[in-house]
Amino acid sequence: MNGIDRVRAKRPLIHSITNIVVANMTANGLLAIGASSVMADASEEVTEMVTHAQALLLNIGTPSSDRIQVMIAAGKEANKQHIPVIVDPVAVGVTTFRTRSVQQLLQEVQVDVIRGNVGEIAALANIEGTVRGVDTAIEQLDVAAIMDVAEQLQTTIVASGKVDVITNGTDHTLCMNGTTMLGKVTGTGCLLSAVIGAYVAVNEDPYIASVNAIAMYNIAAEKAAVHAKGPGSFYPAFLDELSMMTDRDVNTHIRIERSDRS
Amino acid sequence: MNGIDRVRAKRPLIHSITNIVVANMTANGLLAIGASSVMADASEEVTEMVTHAQALLLNIGTPSSDRIQVMIAAGKEANKQHIPVIVDPVAVGVTTFRTRSVQQLLQEVQVDVIRGNVGEIAALANIEGTVRGVDTAIEQLDVAAIMDVAEQLQTTIVASGKVDVITNGTDHTLCMNGTTMLGKVTGTGCLLSAVIGAYVAVNEDPYIASVNAIAMYNIAAEKAAVHAKGPGSFYPAFLDELSMMTDRDVNTHIRIERSDRS
Amino acid sequence: MNGIDRVRAKRPLIHSITNIVVANMTANGLLAIGASSVMADASEEVTEMVTHAQALLLNIGTPSSDRIQVMIAAGKEANKQHIPVIVDPVAVGVTTFRTRSVQQLLQEVQVDVIRGNVGEIAALANIEGTVRGVDTAIEQLDVAAIMDVAEQLQTTIVASGKVDVITNGTDHTLCMNGTTMLGKVTGTGCLLSAVIGAYVAVNEDPYIASVNAIAMYNIAAEKAAVHAKGPGSFYPAFLDELSMMTDRDVNTHIRIERSDRS
Repeated sequence: MNGIDRVRAKRPLIHSITNIVVANMTANGLLAIGASSVMADASEEVTEMVTHAQALLLNIGTPSSDRIQVMIAAGKEANKQHIPVIVDPVAVGVTTFRTRSVQQLLQEVQVDVIRGNVGEIAALANIEGTVRGVDTAIEQLDVAAIMDVAEQLQTTIVASGKVDVITNGTDHTLCMNGTTMLGKVTGTGCLLSAVIGAYVAVNEDPYIASVNAIAMYNIAAEKAAVHAKGPGSFYPAFLDELSMMTDRDVNTHIRIERSDRS
Repeated sequence: MNGIDRVRAKRPLIHSITNIVVANMTANGLLAIGASSVMADASEEVTEMVTHAQALLLNIGTPSSDRIQVMIAAGKEANKQHIPVIVDPVAVGVTTFRTRSVQQLLQEVQVDVIRGNVGEIAALANIEGTVRGVDTAIEQLDVAAIMDVAEQLQTTIVASGKVDVITNGTDHTLCMNGTTMLGKVTGTGCLLSAVIGAYVAVNEDPYIASVNAIAMYNIAAEKAAVHAKGPGSFYPAFLDELSMMTDRDVNTHIRIERSDRS
Repeated sequence: MNGIDRVRAKRPLIHSITNIVVANMTANGLLAIGASSVMADASEEVTEMVTHAQALLLNIGTPSSDRIQVMIAAGKEANKQHIPVIVDPVAVGVTTFRTRSVQQLLQEVQVDVIRGNVGEIAALANIEGTVRGVDTAIEQLDVAAIMDVAEQLQTTIVASGKVDVITNGTDHTLCMNGTTMLGKVTGTGCLLSAVIGAYVAVNEDPYIASVNAIAMYNIAAEKAAVHAKGPGSFYPAFLDELSMMTDRDVNTHIRIERSDRS
């Protein structure tokens, strides 16, 4: 039992510092998989709140200088308490401020998982200088380049795309599950980051936990897409499917390629 | 006519100072029962805005020092204008800052109804010193203890749980309606606080209004749960049911125990 | 092709500075019609972010002094870059601060479209002094008065009501499509403003673009209302319909009266 059943058994609390667009969906998605969330984001309480959580999610969706400082404070406290930290670097690379903020965050906080779309991970690669001349506009990045960033940052990286790439710098897995419907609902990437947080909270290995989380998430989305008329009916169906997923469902439908060195 | 039909007839405006997770749901839930909301939360306008409202909802979900000062300013103006004030002390007791904030708010503003889950009301009891050694982790609190808090604070208290307890310190009512589905959707407690605000806005007695609001709310949830596949489909069904409730529905399905002194 | 098909082909990015109540719905509605949104609202990045967008939406829903300054900075940059600006003056006229904020915004930023309900447009008319003695409480305003405001502000104005009025000060159009269900879901006006932004982003003429946007939006709502049990089931059905609309659907169902001078 190392997947959704374990999340349901342990009911981890995810301290989420996120943005106004996805806050409600993040809270409901975490409840659907059997986890829960608290959204405290004030400097007055953030370091105390994080000590109650089993994982910390830092979503850069709507950054400001104050907000980034709050995230760094929470992240440092999480590091001190050995609470895993997940970062979602929304739209990194699009503005100078956003890029510098993510850079500072990654310098000051040790992060267990970074999840972004391929364009965001490409921007990270540019920041870290591991890849030269990456054109983030093309939003294409090969697996080797993503592995380099993961190795440089000593973290697990999840790059969402048609095929999802998960790597810890040494090993990598490709996940082929999913549906185009996920791209038609706002916040499905942000919620995935939160779900990864819930999995990492109850597993030793962030890389394995991320693979399990993504497979489960994408399979639930596939099921929800079957009867959805459009993005409006897809979203409630997706929450329903998330609430009903079992490890057995995942094992039946999973389509991954593990390219581990073992 | 002292329940949902009266809310529909009077269409009260609820000035809601709340958090990013539940703001949309609160606005939609209030519209569904025939009330409406305005969410102004800036110090520049909050005391003027509250004068247009028939009730003020203060939800501590994402507190900061500035935000608490805004809530106190709005609350004081509401007191001056005899506009009822409802407080939802989200996660009080979990951080020192949150506890102090609620304490300060309750000292400076006269509150008509406090609604929280049993753990939050237990934390309040600790703050007020009416109960010693309450273990908020256990989240169990007997009716007598809740009545003591209500008496001490001269307010109506609603403690949500498997059985909901409503008391004004003198009388109390237990409400047995509801569904476990309410615990699987974020913000259902916060929306209940807003709905209580709408009822208090159109009724003389906050205690009676709270009992009516909770019964209606829980019965609508029971109806919505019948056909819901999960939390995703439950939420739209719940809004639909809220929009169709009548006093007659409530009278047919209500399951309460009044232990009034009369 | 100058309607929804054109939005789908061009996929404009709308930089939306909006409020916590409607942020999620705005993002999902824009995705449903084939556009997309970014919600950056920090002074540190707002002028850089707007240069990536094809339209800027300024929604006054939850104003503060800082927030208004951010909106003005973004608006000025948009003016400089010839990026269209849409303003939604939520509840203008209700507080002195809100009224002054909108006044300042309209003085400093050249706006392509203002969309509000009839009461809000009446309040604007009062501010601009084009109409004397308008009782915003009555929320009635004749077409001539709305045209005067549009002419004075040199902008297109959309006044939402039972019949929607669209005017650029010279010409006007009445749109009779729609459903009362739109008034039962929070944020349907705010989302309409965003959808107008997407249309203005891909059309030369803001007035024509606004007419096309409103007709499409109201027709999608009519379709969604057919099978909706209430506001809860209406909202996902509305997103579904928005995602399926075509110019042909609009041409089949449109009910407008053009009173152009041509």
